[in-house]
Amino acid sequence: MKEGNIVLLIAKDVSYLTEIRKGKLHTQDGIFDLNELKKKSFGEKIKTHLKKEFVIVKPNIVDILEKKAKRLPQIIMPKDVGLIIAYTGISPDSLVVDAGTGSGFLAIFLANYVRLGKVVTYEKNKKFAKIAKENISLSGLTNIKLKQKDIMKGIDEKNVDLITLDMKDAEKVIGHAYKALKPGGWLVVYSPYIEQVISVVKEIEKKNFSNVKTIENMVREWQIKEGARPKTIGIMHTGWLTFARKVG
Amino acid sequence: MKEGNIVLLIAKDVSYLTEIRKGKLHTQDGIFDLNELKKKSFGEKIKTHLKKEFVIVKPNIVDILEKKAKRLPQIIMPKDVGLIIAYTGISPDSLVVDAGTGSGFLAIFLANYVRLGKVVTYEKNKKFAKIAKENISLSGLTNIKLKQKDIMKGIDEKNVDLITLDMKDAEKVIGHAYKALKPGGWLVVYSPYIEQVISVVKEIEKKNFSNVKTIENMVREWQIKEGARPKTIGIMHTGWLTFARKVG
Amino acid sequence: MKEGNIVLLIAKDVSYLTEIRKGKLHTQDGIFDLNELKKKSFGEKIKTHLKKEFVIVKPNIVDILEKKAKRLPQIIMPKDVGLIIAYTGISPDSLVVDAGTGSGFLAIFLANYVRLGKVVTYEKNKKFAKIAKENISLSGLTNIKLKQKDIMKGIDEKNVDLITLDMKDAEKVIGHAYKALKPGGWLVVYSPYIEQVISVVKEIEKKNFSNVKTIENMVREWQIKEGARPKTIGIMHTGWLTFARKVG
Amino acid sequence: MKEGNIVLLIAKDVSYLTEIRKGKLHTQDGIFDLNELKKKSFGEKIKTHLKKEFVIVKPNIVDILEKKAKRLPQIIMPKDVGLIIAYTGISPDSLVVDAGTGSGFLAIFLANYVRLGKVVTYEKNKKFAKIAKENISLSGLTNIKLKQKDIMKGIDEKNVDLITLDMKDAEKVIGHAYKALKPGGWLVVYSPYIEQVISVVKEIEKKNFSNVKTIENMVREWQIKEGARPKTIGIMHTGWLTFARKVG
Repeated sequence: MKEGNIVLLIAKDVSYLTEIRKGKLHTQDGIFDLNELKKKSFGEKIKTHLKKEFVIVKPNIVDILEKKAKRLPQIIMPKDVGLIIAYTGISPDSLVVDAGTGSGFLAIFLANYVRLGKVVTYEKNKKFAKIAKENISLSGLTNIKLKQKDIMKGIDEKNVDLITLDMKDAEKVIGHAYKALKPGGWLVVYSPYIEQVISVVKEIEKKNFSNVKTIENMVREWQIKEGARPKTIGIMHTGWLTFARKVG
Repeated sequence: MKEGNIVLLIAKDVSYLTEIRKGKLHTQDGIFDLNELKKKSFGEKIKTHLKKEFVIVKPNIVDILEKKAKRLPQIIMPKDVGLIIAYTGISPDSLVVDAGTGSGFLAIFLANYVRLGKVVTYEKNKKFAKIAKENISLSGLTNIKLKQKDIMKGIDEKNVDLITLDMKDAEKVIGHAYKALKPGGWLVVYSPYIEQVISVVKEIEKKNFSNVKTIENMVREWQIKEGARPKTIGIMHTGWLTFARKVG
Repeated sequence: MKEGNIVLLIAKDVSYLTEIRKGKLHTQDGIFDLNELKKKSFGEKIKTHLKKEFVIVKPNIVDILEKKAKRLPQIIMPKDVGLIIAYTGISPDSLVVDAGTGSGFLAIFLANYVRLGKVVTYEKNKKFAKIAKENISLSGLTNIKLKQKDIMKGIDEKNVDLITLDMKDAEKVIGHAYKALKPGGWLVVYSPYIEQVISVVKEIEKKNFSNVKTIENMVREWQIKEGARPKTIGIMHTGWLTFARKVG
Repeated sequence: MKEGNIVLLIAKDVSYLTEIRKGKLHTQDGIFDLNELKKKSFGEKIKTHLKKEFVIVKPNIVDILEKKAKRLPQIIMPKDVGLIIAYTGISPDSLVVDAGTGSGFLAIFLANYVRLGKVVTYEKNKKFAKIAKENISLSGLTNIKLKQKDIMKGIDEKNVDLITLDMKDAEKVIGHAYKALKPGGWLVVYSPYIEQVISVVKEIEKKNFSNVKTIENMVREWQIKEGARPKTIGIMHTGWLTFARKVG
C-alpha cells in the first residue's frame, strides 16, 4: 500500500483510521509503526508495541465520516439518510442537488450512493463551505460539486432526480426546487422544528407535487448481553423528513 | 418508447404503473389508450378518456416493488433497508450475500444500490424462489443471482462485503457468515422476535466481530394539513436489526 | 346482592358487566340466569347454560367506563389520565375543575381518585352534557358536579388544586384557570394538535406559572407468548399534555 | 404555621422544600429567614435577602419524593406509576401489597392514592428497608406498613386488590400473589429486562388470570418556546409493566 492511502485498523473493541505515512501513531492501545503498513495488504494484521493485534481494512464512507471528517453541530444522521435513499428509490446514476451543504455529510453520503451520477451541493456560508470542501476531499469522492452560493437565488441544474434541503427557511426554496426537478423527481426537506415542517408543507401544497408525506423516525439501541432491554438514555429526536414527488 | 417498457403515469393524487403494449388500461380515473404511449417521451402528458391528465415518468425501483411485485407476508420494510445501507456504508461496487430471499425485496433493493457489484441471494423454499425470480425479472436488474439452496449448508462466496439474514434460525448461519465475510465486512440480521435477537447475538459474541449493535426503528407518519399531529394508527414494530463487523 | 347492583362476571378469556335484575343475559358464551345472582356473593361462581364458569366480582371504575359508558370520539385515554395523576401529585381530598366534559371519562376517572374531594366539570354542549350525566350516574360517584356552561366565560371555583382542559381553544381559558387555581395548583391541557400546544404554551408564558412542561407518551403493547415482540399495529398518538404550576 | 411542618417555596424558575425551623436556609437565590415562615400562611409570600420573591405552598407527595426522599438507583418512574393506577382502576379504599420496597417510592405513591385503604410493602434487604422507612416517615402517610421480610416466603394478606412487584425473580412470587389476590384483583409486575417479562408471563399463564397484557411506555418531553420539537436526548426505556387480573 502507498503513502497517503487511508486505512482502518480494527480490533474487537476499538478501531483507528489513519493515513499511511512515515512515523508512529500513538493510541490508548499502544504505538503503531506506520511504516509497516506499506508492506501489508488489506486483511493482514499489524500489532502495536503492546502486542495488541489489529486487522487492516479498507475504510468505507461511514468510517471516514465518523472518524475523520470535521463536524458541525446538527448534522443529519445516518438513520435519516437511509430513509431518504429507501423512500425515494434513487439510483446510482441519479442527479442530486443538496443545500445547505453544512459539513457536507449528506452530500458525501449521497455521492457515495450515486457513484455513476452526481451531487451538486449549495452552501452560502464561506466557513461551512471550507469545512465541507475538506470533508469532500477526505472522502475521495469526485462526483460532488460544491457551489458556494445561495440556493434561494435559484438552482442552476435541470432535470434533477432528487433535491435535499437541510436549511433554515427551506420553504423559500420550494419554488426553485419544483422547477429544477424532473417529472417524477423527489424533494426531501429535513426540518428540526415542527413550525418549519408546517411552512414547508404549505408551500409544497401550492405546487403540483404528489406523495407528500412527513415522517419522523426514532432509532432505539438495545443492549442484549446480560439482559435484553433498550438502552436507558438515547436520542429522542433529530428532525422530520418531508417527502414530495413532482408531477410535472 | 417501445412496447414492453414499463412506465409510471402520475397525477397529484394517484399513479399507475403499466407496461407499454397494445390495448387499453382501465382505471378508476378513466381509460388510457396505451398505444398513445409509444409516441410519447418521459415528461410528456397523457389523458384518460375522462380527460384526467397524467405525466409519464420512468419508474424507479420503489415504484416497481410497490406497484407490481408479488408480495409475501412479513417483508422487510424500506425504513429497515435504509438503515442497512446507511449503517454499513456499503458501496455501489460491493458484493452482498442475502438469505432467505423470500419475495426478493431486500435483494432487489440492495442490487439497485450495488449496481457495480452483485447480490447473491439464497432461498431454499421452491415456491418463494419462484416468486422472487419473477420479481427480480420485473426489476430489470441483472446483478442479482438467485440460488435455490439452503444457506445453512454453507456460503459459496468469499470476501463478501455485506451479508443480510432475514430468516428463521439465523443464529445457525453466523459461523458460515463469519467465514464468507472479508475483514471489515458487515453482517446484518433482521429478527421479528426478541428471542431471535438474543440467540443471534450469543452466536455473534463467539466470533471475532466488532461493532455489535442491535437497534429497532420506529417511523411515525404525521399529518400536517388542518392541524399537525402524528397519524393516530400506525406500525409499531417490524423487527430488530443486529449489526456486526468482522474483524478477521 | 340486590337488584340494581352492577356486577362483573369474569372468565379467563372474557368478561361481562351486567345489572342484577330479573331475566336472562344472552352472550356468546351462553345464557346467564340473572336471578341466580341475588343469592350469590362477590367471589362466588355462576355458570351459563353452556356450563361455562364465571366469577362474580365488584366492577371498578375502569370496568364501568370500558364496558358500559357511552363514548364520544376522541376521548382521553387511561395512559394520559395516569400521567395527570402521577405528575401533579394531587390527593384524594383535592378540588378539581375540568372542561369540556365530553363523555365525562376524565371527570369520572379523577373523581374516583379524589373521593374525599370534588370534581366540577364544565360542558357547554347540551348533547354532550346529557351523555356525561348518564355516564356519571352509571359510575355511582357522587362527588362530580356537572355544570352545563361555557368555561370561557369564567370559572366559579376558587383555590382549585387541579384544572384539566380537554377542549378547542383551550388557550382562551388560561387566564381564568390562573385565577381559579390556588398557589401551587396545577393546570393540565390535553391537545391533539401541536398548533394547540404552541398557542397554549404562549398564553401560559404570560402568567406566573412554573414547571411548564409538554410531553407526549406512547404506549406499546407487546405479545409475549410464542415469541416476544411489540404488536405490529397500534396507537401512535393521542395528544400532548402540557403541565404548568401556578406560582401565585 | 408550626415548627416541623414542611413547606414548598416556589418561584417561576425554581422551588425549595424546607422544614419550618429556627435559622436560615442558604440557596443560590439568596438566604431565607425560616423564622418568618411561622407568621405566614399558605399562599403568602416570602423573600430572600436578595429580594427574590417566593410563594409558600403546601407540598404534595411528588414534591416530597422529588426533593427530599432518599433515592436508590432504578426507581420506578411516575409515568409507570400513573399507568398502574389508570389501568387497574383501583380505588382510594383498596388494599395493596407491594414488593420489593426499595426506596419506597411506589408504596408511597400508591398509599397517597389509597388514603382510605392500605399499602403493605415487603423488603428483605435491611439497608433498603431503613431508607424506605425514612422516606415513608417524610411522606407523612400513615397507611403504609413496611414488613422487613422476603415475599418469596409468602404473602400474609388476603383479599388483596392490587399486588405490585418490582423485584428480581418476580416470577417466583406469582403463585403467592395469585393466592393473596381477591377475585377481580390485579397483579402488576415491573420488569427492566425482557427475559424477566418472558419468565413472569410464563408463570402467569399457569394460573387462572385474565386480561394478561404487557406494555412499555415512552414519554417524550417537548420544547415549545423558540421552535417546537421533542428534546434531543431523553429516557428511552425504564421497564415493562405486565398486568394480569385474577379470575378466582
